[in-house]
Amino acid sequence: MTDINRQFRLKRRPSGRITAEDFDFVEAPVPSPGPGEVLVRTLYISMEPIYRLWLTDSDHDLPPVQLGEVVRGVGLGRVVASNADAWKPGDLASGMFGWQDYAVVPSPGVARMARIPADPPVALTTMLGACGSTGFCAYFGLIDIGEPKAGETVVVSAAAGAVGSVAGQIAKIKGCRAVGIAGGPEKCRILTEQLGFDAAVDYKRGDWREALAAATPDGIDINYENVGGAIMDAVIDRMNRGGRVVVCGLITDYNDGERRDGHLQARGNFIPIFTHRLRVQGFVFTDYAPRFPEAVRQLGAWIKAGRIKPIETVVEGLERTPEALNRLFDGGNVGKLLVKVAEP
Amino acid sequence: MTDINRQFRLKRRPSGRITAEDFDFVEAPVPSPGPGEVLVRTLYISMEPIYRLWLTDSDHDLPPVQLGEVVRGVGLGRVVASNADAWKPGDLASGMFGWQDYAVVPSPGVARMARIPADPPVALTTMLGACGSTGFCAYFGLIDIGEPKAGETVVVSAAAGAVGSVAGQIAKIKGCRAVGIAGGPEKCRILTEQLGFDAAVDYKRGDWREALAAATPDGIDINYENVGGAIMDAVIDRMNRGGRVVVCGLITDYNDGERRDGHLQARGNFIPIFTHRLRVQGFVFTDYAPRFPEAVRQLGAWIKAGRIKPIETVVEGLERTPEALNRLFDGGNVGKLLVKVAEP
Repeated sequence: MTDINRQFRLKRRPSGRITAEDFDFVEAPVPSPGPGEVLVRTLYISMEPIYRLWLTDSDHDLPPVQLGEVVRGVGLGRVVASNADAWKPGDLASGMFGWQDYAVVPSPGVARMARIPADPPVALTTMLGACGSTGFCAYFGLIDIGEPKAGETVVVSAAAGAVGSVAGQIAKIKGCRAVGIAGGPEKCRILTEQLGFDAAVDYKRGDWREALAAATPDGIDINYENVGGAIMDAVIDRMNRGGRVVVCGLITDYNDGERRDGHLQARGNFIPIFTHRLRVQGFVFTDYAPRFPEAVRQLGAWIKAGRIKPIETVVEGLERTPEALNRLFDGGNVGKLLVKVAEP
Repeated sequence: MTDINRQFRLKRRPSGRITAEDFDFVEAPVPSPGPGEVLVRTLYISMEPIYRLWLTDSDHDLPPVQLGEVVRGVGLGRVVASNADAWKPGDLASGMFGWQDYAVVPSPGVARMARIPADPPVALTTMLGACGSTGFCAYFGLIDIGEPKAGETVVVSAAAGAVGSVAGQIAKIKGCRAVGIAGGPEKCRILTEQLGFDAAVDYKRGDWREALAAATPDGIDINYENVGGAIMDAVIDRMNRGGRVVVCGLITDYNDGERRDGHLQARGNFIPIFTHRLRVQGFVFTDYAPRFPEAVRQLGAWIKAGRIKPIETVVEGLERTPEALNRLFDGGNVGKLLVKVAEP
């Protein structure tokens, strides 16, 4: 245990892609937990596109990170000191530990910490990926909101990403035709050859519209949407009556999206919503917290059975967290991206 | 019975607002029904904004009207000759009779004709308005898709229009706070003084955003959307978690909306859909055809009890149909707009 706590604190609101200058990377003493609080050593930080929205100055699913505050982030860590009955030193947990070596979790946050078993059913990194928040987004979003029926066509954007790759594999498990949209031939190859997607559409090719049409000859019943923008418009235009759009994220606009009246915009066409009788529904996976045990059990079983193949990339070192976050937006990443902060 | 059949046929695809030059107004002989077909004398034509979309060259809820074809439209008429077992001369019906004096309804269309009783529960015009397709849009859209709960706040756009005025009154019947958005003080006065809305927001005033905020102190749970554009964006920004957006129409873009890849656009911000966990759902009232009798019974009862007050404007003369349609888009109309083609 080191006795300093490195932290990223927000120095200014980023414009476009984040840079090192947007943060103060400081060294603070390791804090002590107060009554009801828990001190956690961060082991891994999950990289999630929504972090970029938390750095803007408006409310999204959570209020913005304030200037001077430690940057918010989901992590997996080990309890090192506890004043809460439910937790003892050595316990593993995931929670909102932030971009720092150590987090004192206040009591409301302690109640939201998720327990990771000492002998997890899958690799520890996977408990933050396909069997953790990433998997939960894919699981609840596709199953509860998408309501897939065998034989339907599911189109997943950012399909080689953390959530998309799992959503497409669950679509296959549910008997659907899974079509992934991703950038570049290598990602597309991974989707079809490694993860079992029925088809992949490379949006970097000039003929992606024709490829999308060819890959979805019976139209599209479910769009699991992570990206937004022109590709989402094209997918929605091909949707069948009664189709469902599961809005998990819209990352194409997080960095450079236009603003109106102070609100970040990710503008899409609403007309097909009524002419095609679509249901477009958003969610945040934490809404399903009471059902996390079900998701862990089911996702863990699918992973162990080889029906979901997790893909993970680990970046070493807390200091590389900002550059890691940018990788989610530059198309360079495949699967789940984690920052490793300390040896488990 | 005249022996000529005046018809509006589509001459060219309109650009912006329709004009007389977009149509050929021709005189044809009154046709005879073939086997299984019915000949109907048009009495009233319902003016509906979606007609404008049918005149474009792309599919919406129905394929486009082709050049040279009689313009599609919903009407109320009297059967004058019938080769279908279910219909006899003198019967009243509503159906897709078009912008013409007489329609031969082919057998698939005969199956979709809705019977109007000889002694309707409300005025004949109301059977095409608040107790007909207009009312059905409000009824199924608000109740089935909006799922209003007592105490919730419902915001209706184009609230002084045919559908909006009924949707707001149903919201009140369901125990909700009903807030209408309309253009000008006279429309707003009708909403609050005549139709029982709790508040009205005049979007033509410079302070409409502040007025919307003041009228929805507890946020917005349901948006019954008829308009689209900047006002819809502002409404959606104020929605509570788990809110529902009922997409009935987006008329602000039907005439002059931008196009992308040939598709008419009505662009809205998708970000609140997931950050606020919204459900945005479209529908076309004909999807609920099996439940029309329920809707007629319930709407008729509410109208007779004075709980829904229909507002109707009747334009006299088939020849004025194009100018009547434009009135739906220029803000000059209150309530249901009908064209009277012949004396009942």
